[in-house]
Amino acid sequence: MDLKPTKPLSGFIELLPAQQRCFDECARRMQEVLRECGFSMLDLPAIERAEVLSDKDNWDEIETQMFLFQYGDTKMGLRYDGTVGLSRFVAGHLNDLVFPFRASQFSKRYRGERRQRGRYREFYQMDMDIMGINTLSINYDAEIISVIQRTLDSVSEFIGGNYVRVGSRPFWDAFFDYLGLDSDQRKEVFVLVDKRDKMGEEEFALGLSDTLKNKKTENEIKSVFINGYKEFLNKSDRLDAAILELTDFMEKLKQFGVKGAEIDLSVARGLAYYTGLVFEFKLTDHPELQTAAGGGRYADLVEKFSKTKIIGVGAAIGFSRIFVALMESGAIDLSRWERPIDVAVLVMGDENLPYALGVVNALRDAKIPSVAYLDTDKKFKNQIEYADKIMTKYSIIIGEDEVKNKLVSIKDMASGTQQTLAVADAVKLILGDKK
Amino acid sequence: MDLKPTKPLSGFIELLPAQQRCFDECARRMQEVLRECGFSMLDLPAIERAEVLSDKDNWDEIETQMFLFQYGDTKMGLRYDGTVGLSRFVAGHLNDLVFPFRASQFSKRYRGERRQRGRYREFYQMDMDIMGINTLSINYDAEIISVIQRTLDSVSEFIGGNYVRVGSRPFWDAFFDYLGLDSDQRKEVFVLVDKRDKMGEEEFALGLSDTLKNKKTENEIKSVFINGYKEFLNKSDRLDAAILELTDFMEKLKQFGVKGAEIDLSVARGLAYYTGLVFEFKLTDHPELQTAAGGGRYADLVEKFSKTKIIGVGAAIGFSRIFVALMESGAIDLSRWERPIDVAVLVMGDENLPYALGVVNALRDAKIPSVAYLDTDKKFKNQIEYADKIMTKYSIIIGEDEVKNKLVSIKDMASGTQQTLAVADAVKLILGDKK
Repeated sequence: MDLKPTKPLSGFIELLPAQQRCFDECARRMQEVLRECGFSMLDLPAIERAEVLSDKDNWDEIETQMFLFQYGDTKMGLRYDGTVGLSRFVAGHLNDLVFPFRASQFSKRYRGERRQRGRYREFYQMDMDIMGINTLSINYDAEIISVIQRTLDSVSEFIGGNYVRVGSRPFWDAFFDYLGLDSDQRKEVFVLVDKRDKMGEEEFALGLSDTLKNKKTENEIKSVFINGYKEFLNKSDRLDAAILELTDFMEKLKQFGVKGAEIDLSVARGLAYYTGLVFEFKLTDHPELQTAAGGGRYADLVEKFSKTKIIGVGAAIGFSRIFVALMESGAIDLSRWERPIDVAVLVMGDENLPYALGVVNALRDAKIPSVAYLDTDKKFKNQIEYADKIMTKYSIIIGEDEVKNKLVSIKDMASGTQQTLAVADAVKLILGDKK
Repeated sequence: MDLKPTKPLSGFIELLPAQQRCFDECARRMQEVLRECGFSMLDLPAIERAEVLSDKDNWDEIETQMFLFQYGDTKMGLRYDGTVGLSRFVAGHLNDLVFPFRASQFSKRYRGERRQRGRYREFYQMDMDIMGINTLSINYDAEIISVIQRTLDSVSEFIGGNYVRVGSRPFWDAFFDYLGLDSDQRKEVFVLVDKRDKMGEEEFALGLSDTLKNKKTENEIKSVFINGYKEFLNKSDRLDAAILELTDFMEKLKQFGVKGAEIDLSVARGLAYYTGLVFEFKLTDHPELQTAAGGGRYADLVEKFSKTKIIGVGAAIGFSRIFVALMESGAIDLSRWERPIDVAVLVMGDENLPYALGVVNALRDAKIPSVAYLDTDKKFKNQIEYADKIMTKYSIIIGEDEVKNKLVSIKDMASGTQQTLAVADAVKLILGDKK
């Protein structure tokens, strides 16, 4: 019989135990920050009706990347982001939730796109959203950015520092008005702005020229990035308002304690549903990862599900993408995650098992991760080899003498020193060592 | 425009924030126990190749319940249990893992079956498996059972007590030999034994009679449940061996500290891949939930993936099924999960925001879950209403006077008493209260 393949499907992440422990610890810390900041964790279904998934304006683009299937008469698919489910959930529970409602989701997302480096078909994102009915102060935009920074800071020992760049949808709307662009031109120029970072100066200029065929207008757009938005003060009331909102907001971010924030009008967040300020976080030490987190404000989250108007500001951290890339590149030191078990209890013969199990229970009751080697007929040599391989700090040896004297022999695996102690004293030794 | 449906697809679980917090806390405690017992957490892909999913012997039965789809040339589907992925993973990483290897998975599983009460299309199970190469002492079967009990005990305040019933595959194999059944009869009788609890005495007898048409044999099988296995000592060496293994094992469970364990030969665990002892946990206070956890020993976990022989003992806890049923029935008191945020900071005007944000940061730095009400133009009445609705223990009010005097007004929301304190003293008051 042919053996079946042991590799996961291409584009799927599979971590080894030590990697998983590091990943889980990062998730734990980040979720703890979110709880301290008053966010409720939601765990919504990974499968949604196709009509719910097709909520987004860029559905055509998304559909080609989706895992879609049919069960009975119902077309359904795996979620590709956290927002579609959140919209449905919030619209369905308007009376069960208190607004402004703070929600966070740490969950798997699915995209059927072809495997590329750093792109996965199954990946975790960590979403956070604050939603208000009818109104939501711009203070919440600053709050979301400060919460993301707090969250990323909680794992800075792994990912290093971070900074944030803030853009503005209203600026571009007002600017396109001022330039007198038609709706096709607006869309095309906006896509160019969004991709400017990746395409570079020259290609950007060519794109503008293709779209606009008007040197003056092209130069004014390029000037936003060269001379800055200040050039366009006093050109129109709406432009002034958009620029004032943005500059005031940067002051606000300082009040919220956000470090390393700057305006960058090339931050646009694609064609997604954002309508206000938008932002992107990058990692100081890892520019190659591009965007670590991004988000912004949207005018109505639930319009396809409810007549109630829900204004929101939200963001997602590319959790899997960041951590898997940093682990694979060796940027995260995994050695400290290789030793999850503190003590191996080695049992010299099944007749000594009852006493040995009492020792294991005492260790576990003291919250000391420990295992017994339960193939009790194996030689000491095999048993100590196991303790060595799982890299415990201590091994405890239980033989005839230990049982008779109600003691344990405890061996420090690094130094090799061995002593005979009462169980309670061994627990104290190990706990003292853990601090 | 028609509004889209806000309910999740039928058969999918969607918890409200307070329910989710209780669910997450149970998961956290149970996973902590597993870590203390030396288990490595694995988070494997939810999507596997169809040929990997079809690993199991009861594939025909499973296939009708699967979410299967195709992407490019590859047929794939959502996992219906944790074992298929674990087998593939272990076979693919024989040299990366230390055996006996202890693995746990807490992950979503998918079944496309039609919605029935208490059956879900997406649900969490918590798996734990211990695997050895070529050999694995029966001590590990006892260890798995004791670990499950420790895990369930960690959430006993929610689910109450538990007990375990142990059955034996080798007993039935030897017994069928002794009775001289052919292979079809074996299979049919085994299915009847497995379903005996659900079908009742009479239907069981009818089934036996249909299958065997031999009063003597039928009566001997019924006698296992009426007079017990002891009747069949000294009938054959293999029966004696199977009975001895089982009775010795019950002694072993006592050594491992397992409470409430008894032999029950109707515990069979269906047609799944078990080859040794099998077991099922039930909840003392919730017999209506039937099996809370179940598992057993299998002779070769990875035979379809590798020539290395991996003997294992494993079990799964029906996590979603238990918790959702107990929550829905009101057996779990959710009121203590309704109050996740300790402090609401109310800000009387945007000019007081910078000072208020300093207060919020001080609270969060002290790990006190807290939020600021950032719609600072709202009246005090609206703001205190919000604090009331999210049920914080305290509200802190920041107005002109507080900013001027560098103090905070802190209100105990239950008693209504209010006092003015320095920030550090307010933090102490709240922390003291938390203990």
